[in-house]
Amino acid sequence: MSRRPWHDRPVTVTDLRTPAVLVDKARALRNIDRMQAAATARGLRLRPHAKTHKSPIVARWQIERGAVGICCAKIGEAEAFADAGIADIRIPYPINPANADRVIALAARTQLSFIVDHAGVAAAWSAALTAAGLTLDVLVKVDVGFHRCGIAPDAATAVPFITAVAALPGLRLKGLLSHAGQAYHATSAGHLREMATDEAATLRALAAAARTAGVSIEELSAGATPIARFSLEQDGLTEYRPGNYAYFDRTQVGLGAASLDDCALTVLARVVSKPAADRVILDSGSKTLSSDGARGFSPASGYGVVLGHEDLLVERLSEEHATVRATRGTTTLEPGDLVRVLPNHSCVVSNLVDQAWLVEGDEVTPLPVAARGRIA
Amino acid sequence: MSRRPWHDRPVTVTDLRTPAVLVDKARALRNIDRMQAAATARGLRLRPHAKTHKSPIVARWQIERGAVGICCAKIGEAEAFADAGIADIRIPYPINPANADRVIALAARTQLSFIVDHAGVAAAWSAALTAAGLTLDVLVKVDVGFHRCGIAPDAATAVPFITAVAALPGLRLKGLLSHAGQAYHATSAGHLREMATDEAATLRALAAAARTAGVSIEELSAGATPIARFSLEQDGLTEYRPGNYAYFDRTQVGLGAASLDDCALTVLARVVSKPAADRVILDSGSKTLSSDGARGFSPASGYGVVLGHEDLLVERLSEEHATVRATRGTTTLEPGDLVRVLPNHSCVVSNLVDQAWLVEGDEVTPLPVAARGRIA
Repeated sequence: MSRRPWHDRPVTVTDLRTPAVLVDKARALRNIDRMQAAATARGLRLRPHAKTHKSPIVARWQIERGAVGICCAKIGEAEAFADAGIADIRIPYPINPANADRVIALAARTQLSFIVDHAGVAAAWSAALTAAGLTLDVLVKVDVGFHRCGIAPDAATAVPFITAVAALPGLRLKGLLSHAGQAYHATSAGHLREMATDEAATLRALAAAARTAGVSIEELSAGATPIARFSLEQDGLTEYRPGNYAYFDRTQVGLGAASLDDCALTVLARVVSKPAADRVILDSGSKTLSSDGARGFSPASGYGVVLGHEDLLVERLSEEHATVRATRGTTTLEPGDLVRVLPNHSCVVSNLVDQAWLVEGDEVTPLPVAARGRIA
Repeated sequence: MSRRPWHDRPVTVTDLRTPAVLVDKARALRNIDRMQAAATARGLRLRPHAKTHKSPIVARWQIERGAVGICCAKIGEAEAFADAGIADIRIPYPINPANADRVIALAARTQLSFIVDHAGVAAAWSAALTAAGLTLDVLVKVDVGFHRCGIAPDAATAVPFITAVAALPGLRLKGLLSHAGQAYHATSAGHLREMATDEAATLRALAAAARTAGVSIEELSAGATPIARFSLEQDGLTEYRPGNYAYFDRTQVGLGAASLDDCALTVLARVVSKPAADRVILDSGSKTLSSDGARGFSPASGYGVVLGHEDLLVERLSEEHATVRATRGTTTLEPGDLVRVLPNHSCVVSNLVDQAWLVEGDEVTPLPVAARGRIA
């Protein structure tokens, strides 16, 4: 992966084959420290979502600094982290009982919990786990406005579902869980604050109604990096599950959750063509930056920021090319030159490489992305 | 990867963990046969771009049926195919001399050619290859309207560049090469035909001008699946390099290059939640389908077609979720149900999995995606 012999001196950024995904270790650790401190200060347990880094190395940094465990999106991701010895994994995803065999095997080697949001699925899990002689922690997923998964939060329909789940053998109802994914479509910081307030109020109200119905609700778990700063101010939450904060990205900057200097993940790219004075081609296309567009309420366009060259617009991505246009005249970049691109979305970039590189000063060391591609 | 023991019977589609990428073998072979027959009938050499399948198995199907070799987008892809014994690889990408060591190593084990579109880069390649005692075939990349890479096609500037490349030691100028990527933005079949006509005319005119200047131009190479049917009618081309045609996808259907029944690659997904009567969640998000949008001049929206459920709109992708809405009332799909999704763009889907599955009837066998993730 590197261009020169390694044995005589440390590997530096300019030795790398391009494109390459770089993770600034100092920034990642600072991001992790800050979020942990904010959660601890409010008495919340932090359980980072590992989808952003997909790396047991980074997960251990998070746990060593106080995280109670991690979240994984899929069973395959959880298997990769369990293989690496991560002891407490929550899957805030409506996993299907078609995979009961894998969940049962996984529960033998890590503390495993997951969510339910459907009566038939919950009943099937109950049957499968009971047959295996297991009882696993579950949380009921509540839709707080993203309208993806989760039960509708009105007590009239939600409380009977929660009560039914609490009564199922093989499942131990821990509490309620939500993800305010609508935060990615917020129009202002005030809008984000409102979403955070609403989410916590929804969870508290539903927990109160469930408790009135005689159900124990121990955990109120929320989590989304864009609104973390507002959610951590809310009362009643017990757990927070942000993911992106470890690396941040251009979208988080656009949502006011981070500054450019907080962003830990960048793509090292090389200029490979300069067909016109105002156009260069980088070797980082959608296979590296992904085709995820710019988001956030600060206006932004294109497929990333060429750091130090803010006059450049990453106008179009092909799979292996970024077509970059100088918006103010021409660019001094020439073929062979190296640049760093801040991507719109860091989580999906991690998923595109088997290995990223940890950067400390100019030196780089491999950072395997152990859970990359664990889609199932 | 499969759900039940394999030893007692063949593995079938319903055994697979989901999501999973399926490739219908009969359709892929039919697509390969048809394109080969069309190229052969016109006397063109077919050199498929392997980026779509990233699989030496499929590349061998193409070569056994008459392809003269393959194209790869990056040196890393070419290395993977050379490892598998593919003997003739063209890289229609402006590879940078920073990677001369790898190119020199690769040229020792496969017939390698590449493109140049920049005087400084061409000179650096000449120096590096001459120093290694090598001469490699190169083609000059011509911009025929996509405005990505390539030299501008006006003879006044292009002929001096072509002449200069032809004079460089270490490089053997084979001819001119173009890619009409603008075809993906065509507004009608007539528009596609016009693009194909223009591209061939541009290449012929520039070749004539270069020949007048005393330069030998043996190869005129074009290639893009959406306009293949029109390009193969043109005079003067010697080589065609389509990639996507092996699998096709929803975009090609939208561009009239294929029918739904030609599409060989689909994503097997499972319903994991049904939060409302008109909404189901599939376990195939952007980590499987990619976030590439719908393209083509036939109106289409969303992130794929749920085959057999054309009333469903794949409205939104998260990394691990497809939020699917019934556009006419409700859906009968329930958690646990399996569906197949035709993605907008098959090439990027191949790049997201280490292994796809070849489907013959109901039986499936592994199809390793050997060149997945070879970004550098």
